[in-house]
Order: sequence, then C-alpha cells, then structure tokens
Amino acid sequence: MIMNRFPEAFRTLIEELKKLPGIGPRTAYRLAFFILSREETHIKSLAEALLRAKSEIRLCRLCFSLADDEKCAICADESRDKSIICVVEEPKDVFAIEKVREFKGVYHVLGGALSPIDGIGPEQLRIGELLQRIRENPVKEVIIATNPTVSGEATAIYLARILKEQKVKVTRLASGIPYGGDI
Amino acid sequence: MIMNRFPEAFRTLIEELKKLPGIGPRTAYRLAFFILSREETHIKSLAEALLRAKSEIRLCRLCFSLADDEKCAICADESRDKSIICVVEEPKDVFAIEKVREFKGVYHVLGGALSPIDGIGPEQLRIGELLQRIRENPVKEVIIATNPTVSGEATAIYLARILKEQKVKVTRLASGIPYGGDI
Repeated sequence: MIMNRFPEAFRTLIEELKKLPGIGPRTAYRLAFFILSREETHIKSLAEALLRAKSEIRLCRLCFSLADDEKCAICADESRDKSIICVVEEPKDVFAIEKVREFKGVYHVLGGALSPIDGIGPEQLRIGELLQRIRENPVKEVIIATNPTVSGEATAIYLARILKEQKVKVTRLASGIPYGGDI
Repeated sequence: MIMNRFPEAFRTLIEELKKLPGIGPRTAYRLAFFILSREETHIKSLAEALLRAKSEIRLCRLCFSLADDEKCAICADESRDKSIICVVEEPKDVFAIEKVREFKGVYHVLGGALSPIDGIGPEQLRIGELLQRIRENPVKEVIIATNPTVSGEATAIYLARILKEQKVKVTRLASGIPYGGDI
C-alpha cells in the first residue's frame, strides 16, 4: 500500500477525517496536510472545540433544540410568543427558520420523522412531549414544519390527526412550490 | 445575531471548522450538526487523531518528507535506489509521485519553491541540505520535480544551475502537456 509509506498518525488522521460527511479521500488528504502545516495551538483549539461541543451542548428540556443550559436561548427569551409552537424534525431546521427572522413563536424538535422502514414510529419521536406541552401550556397554534419528504409528510399527516383532539389551531408550513405545480 | 440563539460551544465549533481550507459557513454548520449527532467516543478519536498527527509526525532527517521516526519509510526502505533523488516542493508531492508506483529512487522535499515576493529565497528552502546529500552520498541522478508554476519553474532553473557544478545527471520531470502545445 502506498499509504504505508506515510506515518501511521497521518494515516489515522486521514481515516478519521474521511468519516465526516462530504469528505472523501482527496479532501481528507488535503485537510490532513493543512492540519500538519498549522501551529500546534490552532490544532489544539480545533480538538478542544470538538470535545467541548460534544460534552457541553445539551437539548433544551422544553423544545429539544440545542441548549447551553436547561432551556435553549429561544425558550428562555421573554419576547418569544410561547402560544405558537413550530414543530420541526431536527435542531438544524430551527436554525433554518430562525434565519428568515420572521417567526416569533417557539419550536418543538421531534428528533426525526416517521419512517417505519427504519424502525422510527411515533414512540421514537418526541410526540408525547409535544402533546404534554400543549396540554400544560396555553398553546393556541401548532405549525407543522416537517420536511417536504415522504417521511416528513407522513409525520405531518400523523400530527395533524392526533392534534385534532386538542384545542389548538393546526397549520402546515407551505413549501416553496406546490406539489405538481408549474413554475 | 441569529447564531446567538445557539449554544456558545456550537458557535465556537463552527468558527474552528471554518478555518479549514474549503470549508465555508454552510459546510462548517453541516459538519457541526454531524459531530453533535455522533457518539462521544467517535469525536474523541477524531480529536486525538488531530493532536497525535501534530505531535508525532516529524520530518525525515534525510529527505524532509513525513516520518514516524528519524528516517521516513522510503529512506529506510533497502529496496529503494539511493543514487536517484527526486526533488519536490512539499511532502504531498511525494505522495503524488508514489501513487504512480514507478519511481524507485528517493526524494528530497525542499519545503516550498522560490518566491522572492513572499520572501522565499534559496536559504528558506532545503537546498543546502540537498547539496550536502549529493556530496556525501553516491548520487548519480537528480530529477527536478517542482510544480509547473512560475515559482516551481524558477526553482527548477535555479537548481539546474547550481547542480551543474556537481557530478550528477540533472533531469526535469516532464509535465503532461508541453507549454503552448496543442492537444
């Protein structure tokens, strides 16, 4: 093997980098050379950031988005309207909606979407927690903002059905283009 | 700022990832979410690989390519012909040539190419070390394999001139396409 002509620590680094999404052998290799060329302090701060992110970041106990503390910054923010809950699949979807700077309510992160083939049923998602939040708080509206994928749509339909029994207005976030719509 | 709504450790991680070459804000953000989704042991092994690579990898005392030990695997290999030295700019060029599996000699890594505008003169490169190797060992041939860039060509011309005084055959690695050549 060609790679055997390179130090073991170098090969290990390339193997580790290749595990990251979107990083193939060529990119891993380029990153590894870049890392070797940097000062040790820079590499240390990258390594520390990785470990800190994993150990310090937790999930908000209300909405299950990323949090420093018990509650995330959005749930802790007094100016946000707690009566409107936007239901999303993942914390990254919270970020995407926040970028638009329009939504003033709060979120609920399900932790995925229904996908029976992958063994993800309603029990694997934070649907019970959503129902509890609606029951225990004066929630007026739930906006279902799951992704426009098969499993996201299935989740939206499932949620709409079980939320019918609650005294809340349920809306579905519109996608950019209607299905089957002409541009 | 939108990002303030995310944990500080998350923002720090994104900032650190953005310092890597070819990683913009979107990729950094995607990588950060991926890192959070992984098991702590996986993140630890990535962090350790980064630190280990930086602390354990050294430069071969003969050719200045990457090494685990005093000598790199190529210089330590008895089957390689020590009388032919291929001169390259960086350790990554050694890897590129090794991939072809044709060259059976050894290397000499200059550590860059002449670039007066960046303050890189002959003293900043490992040219003295190359001359010493040629003087102290039975070297028959030097193949100049600097890159086909302005500074790589300048380095090749400079090396060819100073190597004339030595009793070695000097050749220049051909590029794929001759300059001004028609395809």
